[in-house]
Amino acid sequence: MVEVKMIIAVRKDVDLGKGKMAAQVAHAAVSCALKSEKDDKKVFKEWIRTGQKKIVVKIENLETIYRLKDMAERAGVVTSLITDAGLTQIAPGTVTCLGLGPAEEDVIDPITSNFKLL
Amino acid sequence: MVEVKMIIAVRKDVDLGKGKMAAQVAHAAVSCALKSEKDDKKVFKEWIRTGQKKIVVKIENLETIYRLKDMAERAGVVTSLITDAGLTQIAPGTVTCLGLGPAEEDVIDPITSNFKLL
Repeated sequence: MVEVKMIIAVRKDVDLGKGKMAAQVAHAAVSCALKSEKDDKKVFKEWIRTGQKKIVVKIENLETIYRLKDMAERAGVVTSLITDAGLTQIAPGTVTCLGLGPAEEDVIDPITSNFKLL
Repeated sequence: MVEVKMIIAVRKDVDLGKGKMAAQVAHAAVSCALKSEKDDKKVFKEWIRTGQKKIVVKIENLETIYRLKDMAERAGVVTSLITDAGLTQIAPGTVTCLGLGPAEEDVIDPITSNFKLL
């Protein structure tokens, strides 16, 4: 089987402290993992078996996040859009990041490989 | 039911970039979530229902992480110790963080409340 990975894209234009940002990324990862465990069992199991590879990338803004989400869904990739409760550093309801996958690299790479690592 | 939360404690003395660090925190969160989904269903469900609250804190060093892990396990809290594959920024096998919970606050707070937010 080809490599299976999860990508988490974090908005560059939202100002989050690193602990808060890590919590948002973790939220995306947990949501995607639970969705794929239910809906995409084979890929999920392979992802766990191979060490649940995750890559965190940065993404320009909200518009780019929605475009990416749309492309991923059309490719059959699990997504999870994360909105912060906004109790602390940012406004309530702010979209902070998008989780994608786990998915096989030949499906997810064409969608995400142009994003830079965070 | 009292508040249910997950704590992820990140080593201060390991030098990780913020994307890499977020991936390690996400790894801990996914591992703890999947363990608790299996072994501690009631608490897991309540955690999901209430928005899967996560708090990322910093911890001194490896010794402190093992001490915290031991305390958590004795209190019946799910834990997951994360070791980096070390292909990039740090030495292979380096322990980077520890996930704790989800657990009810009256169980987890006495163990973790003295750690500072990352």
